Amino acid sequence: MDFNEKLKKYADIINSELEKYVRREECPEKILNDSMEYSLISSAKRLRPILMISSYQLFQDDYEKVFPFAIAMEMIHNFSLIHDDLPALDNDDIRHGKPTNHKKFGEVTAILAGDALLNGAYQVISQDILNTSDDNELKKKIRVFNEITHGTDRMIAGEYVDTEFEGQEISNEYLEYMHNNKTGALIKASVRIGAILADSSDQDLDILTSYAEKIGLAFQIKDDILSEIGDEKILGKPVGNDREKNKVTFVTKYGLDKAKEILEKITAEATLIIDKYGANGEFLKELALYIKNREK
Amino acid sequence: MDFNEKLKKYADIINSELEKYVRREECPEKILNDSMEYSLISSAKRLRPILMISSYQLFQDDYEKVFPFAIAMEMIHNFSLIHDDLPALDNDDIRHGKPTNHKKFGEVTAILAGDALLNGAYQVISQDILNTSDDNELKKKIRVFNEITHGTDRMIAGEYVDTEFEGQEISNEYLEYMHNNKTGALIKASVRIGAILADSSDQDLDILTSYAEKIGLAFQIKDDILSEIGDEKILGKPVGNDREKNKVTFVTKYGLDKAKEILEKITAEATLIIDKYGANGEFLKELALYIKNREK
Repeated sequence: MDFNEKLKKYADIINSELEKYVRREECPEKILNDSMEYSLISSAKRLRPILMISSYQLFQDDYEKVFPFAIAMEMIHNFSLIHDDLPALDNDDIRHGKPTNHKKFGEVTAILAGDALLNGAYQVISQDILNTSDDNELKKKIRVFNEITHGTDRMIAGEYVDTEFEGQEISNEYLEYMHNNKTGALIKASVRIGAILADSSDQDLDILTSYAEKIGLAFQIKDDILSEIGDEKILGKPVGNDREKNKVTFVTKYGLDKAKEILEKITAEATLIIDKYGANGEFLKELALYIKNREK
Repeated sequence: MDFNEKLKKYADIINSELEKYVRREECPEKILNDSMEYSLISSAKRLRPILMISSYQLFQDDYEKVFPFAIAMEMIHNFSLIHDDLPALDNDDIRHGKPTNHKKFGEVTAILAGDALLNGAYQVISQDILNTSDDNELKKKIRVFNEITHGTDRMIAGEYVDTEFEGQEISNEYLEYMHNNKTGALIKASVRIGAILADSSDQDLDILTSYAEKIGLAFQIKDDILSEIGDEKILGKPVGNDREKNKVTFVTKYGLDKAKEILEKITAEATLIIDKYGANGEFLKELALYIKNREK
């Protein structure tokens, strides 16, 4: 199976897992559930769940074990997208090639759907932990639960800094802080969670954490570049948005060429880190290149 | 110690516990942290934490064990207040006698502060679970974690129904569904969590669940009454708000007299349930009366 086939296979697996958590029964809050489904079931890349699976697979094969946490991660990611898109925040109308949640369902529903997805992630986690009797598994899952709460906390802080500092001159340190938190925290958590669940050694966990920090930053720099020169049709959202909103990005801060140069550099660093794992690490290396080369 | 002294003592204990979770360090998201503190540290009644402590005390004395969950519950409660008050939802300007979070800090910060408080509650829980080595304690805490995710899910659904059905004719069943979820779910969870952590029997848990369902509904009916005829100065928020917004409440649905009659009836039922516990249950009985008689 080549890289793209494997990527698609994993995304399909995650999509069919996500389907299990969609609530479709008749109830007074049916439209709220519909709006959660609207955001959750999409043509998204499922990058975080795929990173979790791939990091797990570096050490063990039975990657079904990561599913509840992969689902929870994707729910948290979607909560963050719904709230980020709100009029008070980024005020975005289009995401994944369709109207954003509040454009489709209105602000009340979008705010509460985001809340319900964040909480829903912890429902999934708590149910999985509740159903776990093996002591060793339980210990790992409790640790993973903690990783997710911490990553989400950092993501929210990063989003705050991103929105609050629009139009202001900020230092390189602030820009990196913002990116590391906003996008990096959950990407890092995803990679770490896969490794933790697969009983990786502390040393491996450290190595993978460095890799994750690199690709997390690379992901956001590529986002900044795509927001400047991407193809709207492929990207599924308007281009030029960041500049219009006076967002501080790697492109507005360093210029396009320098941003591309930094992206190349940290991607090379990320793949170099993974060299240690030889053929086993091939997919994680290709994921780093995919993040750099992606067009959406 | 009489009832009011005991109530104040517990509120003081909760307030000083909450203080420990306030982040005051200098960081790029300092104002976000300030806004979380602004809502969290207030003259609130701390009803949910107090119910948790009181229910625990029915069976055991060392109620410090409930603190992390009491704190998490109060964080979730405050997340819900911040989001409910937003312009898109209830559009309220005053809460606890001071400007609502978004009035003070703006909508961006209020939305993200609510998100961070909800996630923060799970951070507190995950940290406490991570630090627990005793197997029996761990089992109870995992169960309690699950209770909280479920209660919060119901609370969000109830808030959705409340906001979405403004100005519409809804059935008695819908009104009760809305109240049971919006306010009842977390009150019920609080009472149940205290009992679970105190190793209550299943039978006691059932009894306390019935009690909690009664006082949860009573709490919301009293809210509806206070919103109609309360004293703004004592209440700390405007009176007549519900009517102005065409909210469906027990008062608009049944009229003031009938609402008061229902409130008396279910409060009597709640205290009757607690009779079983004799002198031990005195405080829970008085809490039911307090909920009925409160002026804020």
